[in-house]
Amino acid sequence: MGKRRLETCFSPALFEADVHKDSIVVIIDILRASSAICTAFANGVASIIPVAEVAQAKEYKSKGYLVAAERDGYVLDFADFGNSPFNFTREKVSGKSIVFSTTNGTGLISLTLSSHMTVVGSFLNIGALAQWLIRQDRDVVLLCAGWKNRFNIEDTICSGAIAEILMASNYFTTICDSTVAAIDLWLLAHTDLKGYIEKAAQRTRLRDKNLDDCIEFCLTSDFTDKIPIMKDGVLVNADL
Amino acid sequence: MGKRRLETCFSPALFEADVHKDSIVVIIDILRASSAICTAFANGVASIIPVAEVAQAKEYKSKGYLVAAERDGYVLDFADFGNSPFNFTREKVSGKSIVFSTTNGTGLISLTLSSHMTVVGSFLNIGALAQWLIRQDRDVVLLCAGWKNRFNIEDTICSGAIAEILMASNYFTTICDSTVAAIDLWLLAHTDLKGYIEKAAQRTRLRDKNLDDCIEFCLTSDFTDKIPIMKDGVLVNADL
Repeated sequence: MGKRRLETCFSPALFEADVHKDSIVVIIDILRASSAICTAFANGVASIIPVAEVAQAKEYKSKGYLVAAERDGYVLDFADFGNSPFNFTREKVSGKSIVFSTTNGTGLISLTLSSHMTVVGSFLNIGALAQWLIRQDRDVVLLCAGWKNRFNIEDTICSGAIAEILMASNYFTTICDSTVAAIDLWLLAHTDLKGYIEKAAQRTRLRDKNLDDCIEFCLTSDFTDKIPIMKDGVLVNADL
Repeated sequence: MGKRRLETCFSPALFEADVHKDSIVVIIDILRASSAICTAFANGVASIIPVAEVAQAKEYKSKGYLVAAERDGYVLDFADFGNSPFNFTREKVSGKSIVFSTTNGTGLISLTLSSHMTVVGSFLNIGALAQWLIRQDRDVVLLCAGWKNRFNIEDTICSGAIAEILMASNYFTTICDSTVAAIDLWLLAHTDLKGYIEKAAQRTRLRDKNLDDCIEFCLTSDFTDKIPIMKDGVLVNADL
């Protein structure tokens, strides 16, 4: 079995759907969408229906679904809650199918629909995710959500952390400068992850809106072993 | 005088022409276009006419211009030479107007035409360029050429080196995660710049084509104090 290729995209604007159609794409939007999704699965959600448009989210709400929907960090008025991981408690989500629409995260999923598979990654499921990726016989693309198509630090650091594990496994090879840089930034950051994330613009944005209470949690490794994957347009837990 | 904003774009695909229309854009394509251009000015070239299309370059050649033109590192058959800085000797270029067309560099220039000004940066002119940028009262965007719209290490490291000087001047502020990451990668790389560039994919590409003899030169700081700027569609030395 030849080595699989590992690539990293720092922004949705850099994602090349045609190049990556046979790859597993890992979506990384740690502050806060992908962390929230991993938390929901940790707390027993049955499935998550990602919707890009506000109108779609509203329609689901009128059908009785629990809806998490925000734009730029603010909960939409009709929604049950926004995308803080702390909203997705076992009491609220266990056994349910819920709807999720965020600024970056859900639009990103639609970008990857032509790929072999779409998976949600964060620090919260990093160990299980990396081992799961190693078990698949596929090239992997780590796709950072960034912020409004721009590079961001927090998703880059998380992609570097995942890349470090994959490269250390010896099952992967990379000729991708983004992967090399992401690993180096992760190695630079990891001894004081919280301190490093202080530099990130999103840290400031969340603080300005009093939405930063979950950051420390989002930087926690291995809170769950759940792997949210897209199946028939819906996120479900991968059959481990 | 308020602080000016400093931003970094890791790829032409991330450049937002409308956002940056009042900014000075520094084009960075150190292996090898922007290093070659700085070398040409160091060696007394009068002006450089950047052309994006091969057909245009050919037309200039038929008019008697000296033409530097390459695609993917290979010299085009009708051209006088490619974009190794070593081609742009004083004997060849002094006092002349020459035509230049490369894979990345010249297409990049056309992307920035709606900006306040376009300037060419590399390690070769880094000190003079940084001081010149500090003297202007303008926001600055460091635009990395990357490789086929992808992030690359060598341009990122050079943008980080420029950014470090600008931020240390206290005339600039940034809320741009790319700038923060570029500075950190530069600080990581700078004690063994040649060793670090070994990691870059372009290093391998140039080596595979035996075009890597100029890399050490391209990593040399302050070979020249010339600042190539775009004026009326042509690169000339900034009036210092």
